[in-house]
Amino acid sequence: MTGQFISLEGGEGTGKSTQAKALAAALEAKGFKVCLTREPGGTPGAETIRELLLRGHDEKWNMRTEALLFAAARSEHCEALIRPALKRGEWVISDRFIDSSRAYQSVSGVLTDDEIMTLHKVGSNALMPHRTFVLDLPEEVAARRAKARDRGDSDRIGGRDSDYHRAVMSKFRQFSQQEPDRVKLIDASLSPTDITANLLQNLTDLIG
Amino acid sequence: MTGQFISLEGGEGTGKSTQAKALAAALEAKGFKVCLTREPGGTPGAETIRELLLRGHDEKWNMRTEALLFAAARSEHCEALIRPALKRGEWVISDRFIDSSRAYQSVSGVLTDDEIMTLHKVGSNALMPHRTFVLDLPEEVAARRAKARDRGDSDRIGGRDSDYHRAVMSKFRQFSQQEPDRVKLIDASLSPTDITANLLQNLTDLIG
Repeated sequence: MTGQFISLEGGEGTGKSTQAKALAAALEAKGFKVCLTREPGGTPGAETIRELLLRGHDEKWNMRTEALLFAAARSEHCEALIRPALKRGEWVISDRFIDSSRAYQSVSGVLTDDEIMTLHKVGSNALMPHRTFVLDLPEEVAARRAKARDRGDSDRIGGRDSDYHRAVMSKFRQFSQQEPDRVKLIDASLSPTDITANLLQNLTDLIG
Repeated sequence: MTGQFISLEGGEGTGKSTQAKALAAALEAKGFKVCLTREPGGTPGAETIRELLLRGHDEKWNMRTEALLFAAARSEHCEALIRPALKRGEWVISDRFIDSSRAYQSVSGVLTDDEIMTLHKVGSNALMPHRTFVLDLPEEVAARRAKARDRGDSDRIGGRDSDYHRAVMSKFRQFSQQEPDRVKLIDASLSPTDITANLLQNLTDLIG
């Protein structure tokens, strides 16, 4: 038996970590074994790469170096944690995965989506989630949260400007149009309990 | 005017750093401006990736993560140091470059040469040296040095066993057969002065 691999995606402050935890608890209550993880990071080695990526000023890395570092952390994460957990039949829930790289790095215009997927193929044999939830906020709520973010308590990538984050969200929405079976848009303006219920609703085919 | 890009390759303890310095001095004496650098590393950002790569035990990274980290450091190195120096018309001498990745990573059997070159293409637009010198030692000298190395004062990659390092050297020799105009085998058992003279001899077409 092989487990199911779920990723949560979306902008900063859309509630991904909260929902990842809530979804894990709900699945455990149904008797599944759940491996809850996050990117960049998830293993001790990948977390040291996370530190390199998220600390410091925005010009610290050019976009190609950044893409390679994310792919390196993901390669470690897939090999040491995600694939073994799936092989043991567990559900893996990851707070961000490959679609974050595709959205955040390709909006720069420096790398194409093909290049980002090529790195994922060489690094992680192009492992894809069985289902991906994009936590989506109405434009005005996202703008308000972005304003709070601009006050300076965010990391190297979260601290980029509002136009950047708007473009990222538009990429995520595009993925859900391109791969409607895998990528589901979830209204993130609802109450946390209602969001979790929506996630479960969108997993009935996988829960079986 | 564009500068010339020279890389020095070979196993541990073949005298690459010594020759890189000696070659830089010889070219400066001829009036050229020289940028002397090394891999992994060469810029502050890339040196932090070097630390991740060379410290710790051998199982710290799987071979694909290792390949991506090398490509990330190289991307930064090319963009922030090598290309700008070449544009200014300088000679760049790098102690190791892409052929080290091709040799050290492909002998593992995990990655193909094509995959390593794909990472180099995405990360650094496949920048290649104008000339590459492989410092080559007779088998018995290499074995003696490897034995010294096995005593434990080497880094994460240098500390791999003698069979590994023998296979790496055989890869370097193979490159010189595949690209005889770019990759020159240099007898590293000669005196340092004679080796430097050989390097200069093999640069007459580029010195002009």
